[in-house]
Amino acid sequence: MTPPRITLLTDFGTRDGFVGAMKGVIAAALPGAAVDDVAHDIPPGDIRAAAGALERYWLRYPVGTVHVVVVDPGVGTTRAALACSASDRLLVGPDNGALTPALAVAGARCVRIDVGALRRPVSPTFHGRDVFAPAACALAAGQPLESLGAPFVDPVRLGSPKPSRVGEDALGEVLALDGFGNATTNLPGTWVRPGCRVAVAGLRLPVLSAYGDVASGEPLALIDSEGRVEIAVRDRSAADRLGLVAGTAVRLLRG
Amino acid sequence: MTPPRITLLTDFGTRDGFVGAMKGVIAAALPGAAVDDVAHDIPPGDIRAAAGALERYWLRYPVGTVHVVVVDPGVGTTRAALACSASDRLLVGPDNGALTPALAVAGARCVRIDVGALRRPVSPTFHGRDVFAPAACALAAGQPLESLGAPFVDPVRLGSPKPSRVGEDALGEVLALDGFGNATTNLPGTWVRPGCRVAVAGLRLPVLSAYGDVASGEPLALIDSEGRVEIAVRDRSAADRLGLVAGTAVRLLRG
Amino acid sequence: MTPPRITLLTDFGTRDGFVGAMKGVIAAALPGAAVDDVAHDIPPGDIRAAAGALERYWLRYPVGTVHVVVVDPGVGTTRAALACSASDRLLVGPDNGALTPALAVAGARCVRIDVGALRRPVSPTFHGRDVFAPAACALAAGQPLESLGAPFVDPVRLGSPKPSRVGEDALGEVLALDGFGNATTNLPGTWVRPGCRVAVAGLRLPVLSAYGDVASGEPLALIDSEGRVEIAVRDRSAADRLGLVAGTAVRLLRG
Repeated sequence: MTPPRITLLTDFGTRDGFVGAMKGVIAAALPGAAVDDVAHDIPPGDIRAAAGALERYWLRYPVGTVHVVVVDPGVGTTRAALACSASDRLLVGPDNGALTPALAVAGARCVRIDVGALRRPVSPTFHGRDVFAPAACALAAGQPLESLGAPFVDPVRLGSPKPSRVGEDALGEVLALDGFGNATTNLPGTWVRPGCRVAVAGLRLPVLSAYGDVASGEPLALIDSEGRVEIAVRDRSAADRLGLVAGTAVRLLRG
Repeated sequence: MTPPRITLLTDFGTRDGFVGAMKGVIAAALPGAAVDDVAHDIPPGDIRAAAGALERYWLRYPVGTVHVVVVDPGVGTTRAALACSASDRLLVGPDNGALTPALAVAGARCVRIDVGALRRPVSPTFHGRDVFAPAACALAAGQPLESLGAPFVDPVRLGSPKPSRVGEDALGEVLALDGFGNATTNLPGTWVRPGCRVAVAGLRLPVLSAYGDVASGEPLALIDSEGRVEIAVRDRSAADRLGLVAGTAVRLLRG
Repeated sequence: MTPPRITLLTDFGTRDGFVGAMKGVIAAALPGAAVDDVAHDIPPGDIRAAAGALERYWLRYPVGTVHVVVVDPGVGTTRAALACSASDRLLVGPDNGALTPALAVAGARCVRIDVGALRRPVSPTFHGRDVFAPAACALAAGQPLESLGAPFVDPVRLGSPKPSRVGEDALGEVLALDGFGNATTNLPGTWVRPGCRVAVAGLRLPVLSAYGDVASGEPLALIDSEGRVEIAVRDRSAADRLGLVAGTAVRLLRG
């Protein structure tokens, strides 16, 4: 018998005890649950960063996992609190786009959490503790999604710039920089042919398979662990060395 | 059957492996315990920050939880190592005020941990590993508080500035800034009447219910998730924008 | 019956979701395992820092624990992926020296993980998720070390500067600075005699037993929790105050 499992992604930091309060609520409601910290250092209010992180882990977890995502600058306003089901995982979080990776899959469905039905006091500034943690426990305990509220259609989904074809080449851009300073792009790795090069920041880079395929300090392109073209500098931050930011143009040269 | 549960709050950081050593000791002594990280990034030696975090989570956890708090600049000196019981939760930590939120409740009682009785080597610089983790395991395993040492009366409690009434108004101050830069004050939310305003840093702020009730970048006051008056700037750090620090005067205008 | 236990030490940071992906893989493969975060903020690529942290916790965990260490700038190159057994604990990580503390014990043995035998896609940039997490689960589930690959002799071990005797004195150096700014040296605490002093950074320091044995802001030496001579400044960073770095000379004056 596997334990119910809840993961936590927030921008709360840990030092103020807000995450502790959420975990305490979960421990009180569902003491046998396994609770996994994913991250609490999402930049404050950075919904896109939350969605980018979620994309990397949510489907790696087993069926039945409840993913809690609380990056919620609109807490206490009329924005809906969502509970969603997608690919047999469950998610709770605000309706602001943070759940986009899960909402994009076929068959995803959401309800608007009926906050009054939680039968507990709800602070308008801390739905992580008072709404999302209790809702996650209800789902992890096996309550049906629909028991939490009425169906909610058309939740907010973050748009994403699409790469385009220009003759033989493809034009894309940097989506995000990770903690190593590596740049994720929107160019699919499946578009890379043998001999392709990547033009970025005035450089033409080979597409190799490992950071160690170039000398320390040298730039390269490769296919990242999500199957997208990535720009890196071995043992350094490509963001810093090449001046990459979200939106920097990247061209895949296939000619 | 719910597992024994231990929470950890320290200023050790994680990268040096000190927290790993504490967790290893716990795993060896009580392998079935659930161990919750609350935070390990309390600013070094900041006892008041530890107490402020503890206040937010300790009672959210279920009865029987053991809270470990190790912010302990006096480690190895004559300061007592405490084990305490309050509101059916248990706590261990140094006698320096970090446990203040729990010590303030009716019926709280403490013992001084008899370090010699732990029957293990004790480094004078690492009581987290050698004293508090073993003591927490003993309590989580069901040993009575009194088995750890003799009663200890009058543990250190941090004082807190009290708000005062000035005619119809109330005068308080900023207690702490959280990771978002929001300022917690010592003014009870129950003192707020409809139409009240809050004077701080040369501004007069409305008391609203959610950050989103003002435009991005605008300041406001609200009642925080602990029921106290809070000063915030939507989507920004009020600490930075308004120059707030612990001790900044805050006046509740009820006239 | 104690659960299988896996610890995680990486330089991934948490905010990008890489650690979440590893935890998801573990939760899917071995849902009953206890997973302990040790640290994810090892400085990027800092193998020595990983080894220094590992030394502090790996033997504190109970027999059977699987320690995962992924600080792996050579990911995807020909460097071996190792699984090792030492002192009845198990370890997985790259062959770059990060596992040195465990490799140094008598009876330690390693295999080179046969990546193809994992029967899953392996990204050349994310062996934490695709190689080390699955290998850790296999070991935690009780598979024999040898089932993961062929014996691997002579894994990389980090060298460490040895202290030397100079007449009655001993000459050593700073090995590392911890998060408090305290300096660990390579001088064994067993070499300290009553009345010894420590010469460092132009100062002669007494060897005392607790930080609190000097006034706030004053420097001292003591024996750290691993039994080595440590240089500290009470309530401050000795690294900052005394300008200590790895390699700074430290002399134990026993004359």
